[in-house]
Amino acid sequence: MNNHIMQAYDEDLKEISKKIMMMGQLSIDAIEQSLVALMDSNVELASKIREQDKFIDALQHDIEEKCTITIAKRQPMANDLRAIMSAIRVANDLERIGDLAKNIAKRVIKIKHEGAKSTVPLGFNLMGSMVCDRIDKVLVAYRENDLELALDVWQHDDEVDLCYNSLFRELLTYMVEKPKSITSCAHLLFCAKNLERAGDHATNIAEIIWYKEKGEVLANVRPTA
Amino acid sequence: MNNHIMQAYDEDLKEISKKIMMMGQLSIDAIEQSLVALMDSNVELASKIREQDKFIDALQHDIEEKCTITIAKRQPMANDLRAIMSAIRVANDLERIGDLAKNIAKRVIKIKHEGAKSTVPLGFNLMGSMVCDRIDKVLVAYRENDLELALDVWQHDDEVDLCYNSLFRELLTYMVEKPKSITSCAHLLFCAKNLERAGDHATNIAEIIWYKEKGEVLANVRPTA
Repeated sequence: MNNHIMQAYDEDLKEISKKIMMMGQLSIDAIEQSLVALMDSNVELASKIREQDKFIDALQHDIEEKCTITIAKRQPMANDLRAIMSAIRVANDLERIGDLAKNIAKRVIKIKHEGAKSTVPLGFNLMGSMVCDRIDKVLVAYRENDLELALDVWQHDDEVDLCYNSLFRELLTYMVEKPKSITSCAHLLFCAKNLERAGDHATNIAEIIWYKEKGEVLANVRPTA
Repeated sequence: MNNHIMQAYDEDLKEISKKIMMMGQLSIDAIEQSLVALMDSNVELASKIREQDKFIDALQHDIEEKCTITIAKRQPMANDLRAIMSAIRVANDLERIGDLAKNIAKRVIKIKHEGAKSTVPLGFNLMGSMVCDRIDKVLVAYRENDLELALDVWQHDDEVDLCYNSLFRELLTYMVEKPKSITSCAHLLFCAKNLERAGDHATNIAEIIWYKEKGEVLANVRPTA
Protein backbone atom coordinates (compact mmCIF):
# COMPACT_ATOMS: atom_id res chain seq x y z
CA MET A 1 0.00 0.00 0.00
CA ASN A 2 1.28 3.50 -0.64
CA ASN A 3 1.49 6.01 2.20
CA HIS A 4 -1.77 7.73 1.44
CA ILE A 5 -3.77 4.49 1.33
CA MET A 6 -1.89 3.25 4.39
CA GLN A 7 -2.97 6.29 6.35
CA ALA A 8 -6.58 6.02 5.23
CA TYR A 9 -6.48 2.35 6.10
CA ASP A 10 -5.18 3.08 9.59
CA GLU A 11 -8.00 5.58 10.06
CA ASP A 12 -10.50 2.91 9.01
CA LEU A 13 -9.03 0.44 11.47
CA LYS A 14 -9.16 2.99 14.28
CA GLU A 15 -12.80 3.71 13.62
CA ILE A 16 -13.61 -0.01 13.58
CA SER A 17 -11.70 -0.55 16.81
CA LYS A 18 -13.60 2.30 18.45
CA LYS A 19 -16.92 0.76 17.48
CA ILE A 20 -15.82 -2.60 18.84
CA MET A 21 -14.96 -1.01 22.17
CA MET A 22 -18.41 0.61 22.26
CA MET A 23 -20.04 -2.69 21.43
CA GLY A 24 -17.97 -4.40 24.11
CA GLN A 25 -19.04 -1.92 26.76
CA LEU A 26 -22.70 -2.36 25.81
CA SER A 27 -22.31 -6.14 26.05
CA ILE A 28 -20.74 -5.94 29.50
CA ASP A 29 -23.51 -3.57 30.62
CA ALA A 30 -26.11 -5.97 29.28
CA ILE A 31 -24.68 -8.91 31.23
CA GLU A 32 -24.37 -6.85 34.40
CA GLN A 33 -27.89 -5.51 34.10
CA SER A 34 -29.31 -8.95 33.34
CA LEU A 35 -27.88 -10.18 36.63
CA VAL A 36 -29.37 -7.26 38.54
CA ALA A 37 -32.72 -8.07 36.90
CA LEU A 38 -32.33 -11.74 37.82
CA MET A 39 -31.35 -11.17 41.46
CA ASP A 40 -34.15 -8.61 41.99
CA SER A 41 -36.61 -10.34 39.63
CA ASN A 42 -36.99 -6.92 38.02
CA VAL A 43 -39.20 -7.36 34.98
CA GLU A 44 -39.00 -3.72 33.88
CA LEU A 45 -35.21 -3.84 33.76
CA ALA A 46 -35.39 -7.17 31.92
CA SER A 47 -37.63 -5.61 29.25
CA LYS A 48 -35.22 -2.72 28.90
CA ILE A 49 -32.30 -5.11 28.32
CA ARG A 50 -34.26 -6.88 25.59
CA GLU A 51 -34.95 -3.56 23.90
CA GLN A 52 -31.37 -2.35 24.15
CA ASP A 53 -29.99 -5.47 22.51
CA LYS A 54 -31.01 -3.87 19.22
CA PHE A 55 -28.24 -1.28 19.62
CA ILE A 56 -25.66 -4.03 19.97
CA ASP A 57 -27.02 -5.76 16.87
CA ALA A 58 -26.97 -2.49 14.92
CA LEU A 59 -23.35 -1.87 15.91
CA GLN A 60 -22.38 -5.33 14.72
CA HIS A 61 -24.03 -4.65 11.39
CA ASP A 62 -22.16 -1.34 11.17
CA ILE A 63 -18.82 -2.95 11.94
CA GLU A 64 -19.37 -5.68 9.38
CA GLU A 65 -20.26 -3.14 6.71
CA LYS A 66 -17.32 -0.91 7.53
CA CYS A 67 -14.91 -3.86 7.50
CA THR A 68 -16.21 -5.15 4.20
CA ILE A 69 -15.95 -1.79 2.51
CA THR A 70 -12.45 -1.31 3.93
CA ILE A 71 -11.28 -4.63 2.51
CA ALA A 72 -12.70 -3.85 -0.92
CA LYS A 73 -11.35 -0.28 -0.99
CA ARG A 74 -7.88 -0.77 0.48
CA GLN A 75 -7.12 -4.31 -0.68
CA PRO A 76 -5.05 -5.11 2.39
CA MET A 77 -2.93 -8.26 2.25
CA ALA A 78 -1.86 -10.83 4.87
CA ASN A 79 -1.46 -9.15 8.28
CA ASP A 80 -3.74 -6.24 7.51
CA LEU A 81 -6.41 -8.49 6.13
CA ARG A 82 -6.22 -10.59 9.28
CA ALA A 83 -6.77 -7.50 11.41
CA ILE A 84 -10.01 -6.68 9.62
CA MET A 85 -11.34 -10.21 9.60
CA SER A 86 -10.57 -10.37 13.32
CA ALA A 87 -12.70 -7.29 13.90
CA ILE A 88 -15.65 -9.00 12.18
CA ARG A 89 -15.19 -12.08 14.32
CA VAL A 90 -14.84 -10.14 17.59
CA ALA A 91 -18.01 -8.20 16.75
CA ASN A 92 -19.74 -11.50 16.16
CA ASP A 93 -18.72 -12.78 19.61
CA LEU A 94 -19.83 -9.56 21.27
CA GLU A 95 -23.19 -9.75 19.53
CA ARG A 96 -23.63 -13.22 20.94
CA ILE A 97 -22.76 -12.01 24.45
CA GLY A 98 -25.51 -9.42 24.04
CA ASP A 99 -27.89 -12.18 22.96
CA LEU A 100 -27.02 -14.23 26.02
CA ALA A 101 -27.78 -11.27 28.29
CA LYS A 102 -31.09 -10.91 26.43
CA ASN A 103 -31.79 -14.61 27.01
CA ILE A 104 -31.27 -14.17 30.76
CA ALA A 105 -33.59 -11.16 30.67
CA LYS A 106 -36.24 -13.24 28.90
CA ARG A 107 -36.00 -15.90 31.62
CA VAL A 108 -36.47 -13.26 34.33
CA ILE A 109 -39.75 -12.34 32.67
CA LYS A 110 -40.78 -15.98 32.25
CA ILE A 111 -40.04 -16.87 35.87
CA LYS A 112 -42.15 -13.93 37.06
CA HIS A 113 -44.90 -14.63 34.54
CA GLU A 114 -45.20 -18.27 35.59
CA GLY A 115 -45.48 -17.19 39.21
CA ALA A 116 -42.63 -19.53 40.00
CA LYS A 117 -40.67 -18.43 43.01
CA SER A 118 -37.28 -19.50 44.09
CA THR A 119 -34.26 -17.93 45.66
CA VAL A 120 -31.60 -17.14 43.10
CA PRO A 121 -28.28 -18.59 44.31
CA LEU A 122 -25.71 -15.94 45.19
CA GLY A 123 -23.26 -17.80 42.99
CA PHE A 124 -24.85 -15.98 40.05
CA ASN A 125 -23.37 -12.71 41.27
CA LEU A 126 -19.91 -14.18 41.59
CA MET A 127 -20.11 -15.82 38.18
CA GLY A 128 -21.49 -12.65 36.63
CA SER A 129 -18.61 -10.49 37.84
CA MET A 130 -16.11 -13.12 36.73
CA VAL A 131 -17.59 -13.14 33.24
CA CYS A 132 -17.75 -9.34 32.98
CA ASP A 133 -14.19 -9.12 34.21
CA ARG A 134 -13.07 -11.55 31.50
CA ILE A 135 -14.86 -9.62 28.77
CA ASP A 136 -13.44 -6.36 30.05
CA LYS A 137 -9.89 -7.74 30.13
CA VAL A 138 -10.08 -9.28 26.70
CA LEU A 139 -11.34 -6.00 25.24
CA VAL A 140 -8.34 -4.18 26.72
CA ALA A 141 -6.13 -6.91 25.21
CA TYR A 142 -7.81 -6.29 21.85
CA ARG A 143 -7.41 -2.53 21.98
CA GLU A 144 -3.78 -2.67 23.15
CA ASN A 145 -2.79 -5.74 21.11
CA ASP A 146 -1.72 -7.19 24.44
CA LEU A 147 -0.95 -10.85 23.79
CA GLU A 148 0.00 -11.55 27.37
CA LEU A 149 -3.32 -10.32 28.65
CA ALA A 150 -5.16 -12.28 25.95
CA LEU A 151 -3.29 -15.42 27.00
CA ASP A 152 -4.17 -14.73 30.62
CA VAL A 153 -7.88 -14.58 29.80
CA TRP A 154 -7.57 -17.72 27.71
CA GLN A 155 -5.78 -19.68 30.43
CA HIS A 156 -8.33 -18.81 33.12
CA ASP A 157 -11.23 -20.13 31.13
CA ASP A 158 -11.86 -22.91 33.67
CA GLU A 159 -12.74 -20.62 36.59
CA VAL A 160 -16.11 -19.72 35.09
CA ASP A 161 -16.72 -23.38 34.26
CA LEU A 162 -16.08 -24.41 37.86
CA CYS A 163 -18.47 -21.74 39.02
CA TYR A 164 -21.06 -22.98 36.54
CA ASN A 165 -20.69 -26.57 37.72
CA SER A 166 -21.27 -25.52 41.32
CA LEU A 167 -24.38 -23.59 40.35
CA PHE A 168 -25.63 -26.52 38.28
CA ARG A 169 -25.29 -28.87 41.26
CA GLU A 170 -26.77 -26.39 43.70
CA LEU A 171 -29.83 -25.88 41.52
CA LEU A 172 -30.34 -29.64 41.15
CA THR A 173 -30.41 -30.05 44.94
CA TYR A 174 -33.15 -27.39 45.18
CA MET A 175 -35.12 -29.25 42.55
CA VAL A 176 -34.87 -32.50 44.49
CA GLU A 177 -35.81 -30.84 47.80
CA LYS A 178 -38.58 -28.64 46.51
CA PRO A 179 -40.43 -30.06 43.52
CA LYS A 180 -42.38 -26.80 43.35
CA SER A 181 -39.20 -24.98 42.47
CA ILE A 182 -38.44 -27.26 39.52
CA THR A 183 -39.77 -24.91 36.84
CA SER A 184 -37.99 -21.81 38.07
CA CYS A 185 -34.82 -23.78 38.76
CA ALA A 186 -34.93 -25.11 35.19
CA HIS A 187 -34.98 -21.51 33.98
CA LEU A 188 -32.10 -20.71 36.32
CA LEU A 189 -30.11 -23.62 34.90
CA PHE A 190 -30.39 -21.98 31.51
CA CYS A 191 -29.41 -18.60 32.94
CA ALA A 192 -26.27 -20.16 34.41
CA LYS A 193 -25.51 -21.79 31.07
CA ASN A 194 -25.97 -18.46 29.28
CA LEU A 195 -23.48 -16.84 31.62
CA GLU A 196 -21.00 -19.65 31.09
CA ARG A 197 -21.30 -19.23 27.33
CA ALA A 198 -20.73 -15.48 27.66
CA GLY A 199 -17.47 -16.39 29.39
CA ASP A 200 -16.63 -18.73 26.49
CA HIS A 201 -16.94 -15.83 24.09
CA ALA A 202 -14.26 -13.96 26.02
CA THR A 203 -12.07 -17.02 25.46
CA ASN A 204 -12.92 -16.96 21.75
CA ILE A 205 -11.94 -13.31 21.53
CA ALA A 206 -8.61 -14.12 23.21
CA GLU A 207 -8.04 -16.73 20.49
CA ILE A 208 -8.94 -14.23 17.77
CA ILE A 209 -6.43 -11.69 19.16
CA TRP A 210 -3.73 -14.34 19.19
CA TYR A 211 -4.44 -15.38 15.62
CA LYS A 212 -4.53 -11.76 14.50
CA GLU A 213 -1.10 -11.01 15.96
CA LYS A 214 0.65 -14.33 15.47
CA GLY A 215 -1.07 -15.75 12.43
CA GLU A 216 -1.33 -19.08 14.22
CA VAL A 217 -4.03 -20.83 16.22
CA LEU A 218 -3.59 -20.47 20.00
CA ALA A 219 -4.44 -24.13 20.45
CA ASN A 220 -6.26 -26.55 18.27
CA VAL A 221 -8.19 -27.80 21.23
CA ARG A 222 -9.46 -25.54 23.97
CA PRO A 223 -8.43 -26.79 27.44
CA THR A 224 -12.03 -27.15 28.56
CA ALA A 225 -13.39 -28.50 25.26
CA MET B 1 -14.82 -5.87 -13.01
CA ASN B 2 -13.56 -6.82 -16.46
CA ASN B 3 -14.58 -10.11 -18.06
CA HIS B 4 -11.51 -12.01 -17.02
CA ILE B 5 -11.75 -10.99 -13.36
CA MET B 6 -15.50 -11.58 -13.48
CA GLN B 7 -14.96 -15.14 -14.60
CA ALA B 8 -12.29 -15.82 -11.99
CA TYR B 9 -14.59 -14.29 -9.40
CA ASP B 10 -17.47 -16.56 -10.43
CA GLU B 11 -15.16 -19.56 -10.11
CA ASP B 12 -14.21 -18.44 -6.60
CA LEU B 13 -17.85 -18.07 -5.63
CA LYS B 14 -18.66 -21.52 -7.00
CA GLU B 15 -15.88 -23.10 -4.99
CA ILE B 16 -17.04 -21.31 -1.84
CA SER B 17 -20.62 -22.40 -2.43
CA LYS B 18 -19.49 -26.00 -2.90
CA LYS B 19 -17.65 -25.92 0.43
CA ILE B 20 -20.69 -24.47 2.15
CA MET B 21 -22.83 -27.30 0.84
CA MET B 22 -20.28 -29.81 2.15
CA MET B 23 -20.23 -28.07 5.51
CA GLY B 24 -24.03 -28.05 5.55
CA GLN B 25 -24.23 -31.77 4.90
CA LEU B 26 -21.74 -32.48 7.68
CA SER B 27 -23.78 -30.33 10.08
CA ILE B 28 -27.01 -32.16 9.23
CA ASP B 29 -25.23 -35.50 9.66
CA ALA B 30 -23.89 -34.36 13.03
CA ILE B 31 -27.35 -33.40 14.30
CA GLU B 32 -28.88 -36.64 13.01
CA GLN B 33 -26.13 -38.75 14.54
CA SER B 34 -26.32 -36.89 17.85
CA LEU B 35 -29.97 -37.84 18.09
CA VAL B 36 -29.22 -41.48 17.35
CA ALA B 37 -26.56 -41.37 20.09
CA LEU B 38 -29.06 -39.75 22.47
CA MET B 39 -31.91 -42.17 21.83
CA ASP B 40 -29.63 -45.23 22.09
CA SER B 41 -27.36 -43.70 24.75
CA ASN B 42 -24.51 -44.69 22.45
CA VAL B 43 -21.33 -43.29 23.96
CA GLU B 44 -19.04 -44.50 21.14
CA LEU B 45 -21.11 -42.69 18.54
CA ALA B 46 -21.16 -39.60 20.76
CA SER B 47 -17.35 -39.61 20.96
CA LYS B 48 -17.16 -39.94 17.18
CA ILE B 49 -19.42 -36.91 16.72
CA ARG B 50 -17.18 -34.86 19.03
CA GLU B 51 -14.14 -35.88 16.99
CA GLN B 52 -15.75 -35.15 13.64
CA ASP B 53 -16.73 -31.64 14.64
CA LYS B 54 -13.13 -30.71 13.84
CA PHE B 55 -13.81 -31.24 10.13
CA ILE B 56 -16.69 -28.78 10.26
CA ASP B 57 -14.49 -26.24 12.06
CA ALA B 58 -11.71 -26.72 9.52
CA LEU B 59 -14.14 -26.18 6.64
CA GLN B 60 -15.35 -22.95 8.22
CA HIS B 61 -11.78 -21.76 8.52
CA ASP B 62 -11.20 -22.67 4.86
CA ILE B 63 -14.28 -20.81 3.71
CA GLU B 64 -13.38 -17.72 5.71
CA GLU B 65 -9.86 -17.69 4.26
CA LYS B 66 -11.10 -18.24 0.73
CA CYS B 67 -13.70 -15.47 1.07
CA THR B 68 -11.21 -13.02 2.50
CA ILE B 69 -8.67 -13.65 -0.24
CA THR B 70 -11.38 -13.36 -2.88
CA ILE B 71 -12.48 -9.96 -1.56
CA ALA B 72 -8.92 -8.65 -1.50
CA LYS B 73 -8.04 -10.05 -4.93
CA ARG B 74 -11.20 -9.25 -6.88
CA GLN B 75 -12.36 -6.10 -5.10
CA PRO B 76 -16.04 -6.84 -5.66
CA MET B 77 -18.49 -4.04 -5.00
CA ALA B 78 -22.06 -3.92 -3.65
CA ASN B 79 -23.96 -7.08 -4.71
CA ASP B 80 -20.88 -9.20 -5.20
CA LEU B 81 -19.42 -8.14 -1.90
CA ARG B 82 -22.70 -9.05 -0.20
CA ALA B 83 -22.55 -12.53 -1.71
CA ILE B 84 -19.14 -13.18 -0.21
CA MET B 85 -19.95 -11.73 3.19
CA SER B 86 -23.08 -13.90 3.19
CA ALA B 87 -20.96 -16.99 2.62
CA ILE B 88 -18.87 -16.13 5.70
CA ARG B 89 -22.00 -15.66 7.76
CA VAL B 90 -23.66 -18.88 6.57
CA ALA B 91 -20.46 -20.81 7.35
CA ASN B 92 -20.55 -19.29 10.81
CA ASP B 93 -24.12 -20.50 11.39
CA LEU B 94 -23.25 -23.98 10.12
CA GLU B 95 -20.26 -24.14 12.43
CA ARG B 96 -22.54 -23.35 15.33
CA ILE B 97 -24.97 -26.09 14.29
CA GLY B 98 -22.01 -28.50 14.38
CA ASP B 99 -21.16 -27.23 17.86
CA LEU B 100 -24.71 -27.80 19.04
CA ALA B 101 -24.59 -31.40 17.80
CA LYS B 102 -21.31 -31.76 19.66
CA ASN B 103 -22.94 -30.39 22.80
CA ILE B 104 -25.70 -33.00 22.56
CA ALA B 105 -23.04 -35.68 22.11
CA LYS B 106 -21.24 -34.43 25.25
CA ARG B 107 -24.48 -34.70 27.23
CA VAL B 108 -24.98 -38.29 26.05
CA ILE B 109 -21.59 -39.13 27.54
CA LYS B 110 -22.33 -37.21 30.75
CA ILE B 111 -25.70 -38.89 31.27
CA LYS B 112 -24.09 -42.32 30.87
CA HIS B 113 -21.10 -41.38 33.01
CA GLU B 114 -23.29 -40.17 35.86
CA GLY B 115 -25.22 -43.41 35.74
CA ALA B 116 -28.37 -41.37 35.44
CA LYS B 117 -31.10 -43.22 33.65
CA SER B 118 -34.22 -41.85 32.10
CA THR B 119 -36.31 -42.50 29.06
CA VAL B 120 -35.59 -40.02 26.32
CA PRO B 121 -38.92 -38.59 25.12
CA LEU B 122 -39.78 -39.57 21.55
CA GLY B 123 -40.38 -35.89 20.87
CA PHE B 124 -36.63 -35.58 20.38
CA ASN B 125 -36.85 -37.63 17.20
CA LEU B 126 -39.64 -35.48 15.81
CA MET B 127 -37.85 -32.28 16.70
CA GLY B 128 -34.59 -33.60 15.28
CA SER B 129 -36.08 -34.40 11.89
CA MET B 130 -37.84 -31.04 11.82
CA VAL B 131 -34.56 -29.25 12.46
CA CYS B 132 -32.60 -31.29 9.89
CA ASP B 133 -35.36 -30.72 7.36
CA ARG B 134 -35.12 -26.96 7.94
CA ILE B 135 -31.34 -26.94 7.54
CA ASP B 136 -31.60 -29.06 4.42
CA LYS B 137 -34.22 -26.77 2.87
CA VAL B 138 -32.36 -23.58 3.67
CA LEU B 139 -29.19 -24.99 2.11
CA VAL B 140 -31.09 -25.72 -1.10
CA ALA B 141 -32.44 -22.16 -0.95
CA TYR B 142 -28.87 -20.92 -0.58
CA ARG B 143 -27.52 -22.97 -3.49
CA GLU B 144 -30.39 -22.09 -5.80
CA ASN B 145 -30.85 -18.50 -4.62
CA ASP B 146 -34.44 -19.53 -3.98
CA LEU B 147 -36.00 -16.65 -2.05
CA GLU B 148 -39.39 -18.32 -1.84
CA LEU B 149 -37.92 -21.38 -0.16
CA ALA B 150 -35.85 -19.21 2.20
CA LEU B 151 -38.99 -17.32 3.16
CA ASP B 152 -40.80 -20.61 3.72
CA VAL B 153 -38.10 -21.77 6.16
CA TRP B 154 -38.17 -18.40 7.89
CA GLN B 155 -41.93 -18.39 8.30
CA HIS B 156 -42.06 -21.87 9.83
CA ASP B 157 -39.62 -21.00 12.57
CA ASP B 158 -42.29 -21.49 15.24
CA GLU B 159 -42.87 -25.22 14.61
CA VAL B 160 -39.56 -26.18 16.19
CA ASP B 161 -40.25 -23.79 19.07
CA LEU B 162 -43.61 -25.42 19.75
CA CYS B 163 -41.94 -28.80 19.74
CA TYR B 164 -39.30 -27.51 22.14
CA ASN B 165 -41.92 -26.12 24.51
CA SER B 166 -43.69 -29.50 24.62
CA LEU B 167 -40.44 -31.29 25.37
CA PHE B 168 -39.58 -28.73 28.06
CA ARG B 169 -42.92 -29.31 29.80
CA GLU B 170 -42.74 -33.07 29.41
CA LEU B 171 -39.28 -33.20 30.97
CA LEU B 172 -40.40 -31.04 33.89
CA THR B 173 -43.23 -33.47 34.68
CA TYR B 174 -40.73 -36.36 34.79
CA MET B 175 -38.61 -34.34 37.17
CA VAL B 176 -41.55 -33.73 39.47
CA GLU B 177 -42.65 -37.37 39.38
CA LYS B 178 -39.23 -38.98 39.69
CA PRO B 179 -36.71 -36.90 41.63
CA LYS B 180 -34.07 -39.49 40.72
CA SER B 181 -34.42 -38.51 37.09
CA ILE B 182 -33.74 -34.82 37.78
CA THR B 183 -30.08 -34.87 36.78
CA SER B 184 -30.56 -36.71 33.51
CA CYS B 185 -33.67 -34.67 32.72
CA ALA B 186 -31.66 -31.49 33.29
CA HIS B 187 -29.18 -32.71 30.68
CA LEU B 188 -32.07 -33.52 28.36
CA LEU B 189 -33.45 -29.99 28.81
CA PHE B 190 -30.16 -28.68 27.46
CA CYS B 191 -30.22 -31.18 24.59
CA ALA B 192 -33.68 -29.93 23.63
CA LYS B 193 -32.45 -26.35 23.82
CA ASN B 194 -29.46 -27.19 21.62
CA LEU B 195 -31.79 -28.64 19.01
CA GLU B 196 -34.00 -25.59 19.14
CA ARG B 197 -31.00 -23.35 18.62
CA ALA B 198 -29.90 -25.45 15.64
CA GLY B 199 -33.31 -24.70 14.17
CA ASP B 200 -32.76 -21.00 14.86
CA HIS B 201 -29.60 -21.09 12.78
CA ALA B 202 -31.63 -22.32 9.81
CA THR B 203 -33.79 -19.23 10.33
CA ASN B 204 -30.65 -17.05 10.45
CA ILE B 205 -29.44 -18.54 7.18
CA ALA B 206 -32.81 -17.78 5.59
CA GLU B 207 -32.34 -14.15 6.69
CA ILE B 208 -28.83 -14.08 5.24
CA ILE B 209 -30.09 -15.38 1.88
CA TRP B 210 -32.75 -12.70 1.82
CA TYR B 211 -30.28 -9.95 2.62
CA LYS B 212 -27.85 -11.27 0.02
CA GLU B 213 -30.45 -11.20 -2.74
CA LYS B 214 -32.52 -8.19 -1.74
CA GLY B 215 -30.03 -6.03 0.13
CA GLU B 216 -32.62 -5.51 2.83
CA VAL B 217 -33.32 -7.09 6.20
CA LEU B 218 -36.11 -9.71 6.08
CA ALA B 219 -37.58 -8.32 9.28
CA ASN B 220 -36.10 -6.23 11.98
CA VAL B 221 -37.65 -8.44 14.57
CA ARG B 222 -37.88 -12.19 14.25
CA PRO B 223 -41.45 -13.41 14.80
CA THR B 224 -40.42 -15.56 17.75
CA ALA B 225 -37.89 -13.14 19.24
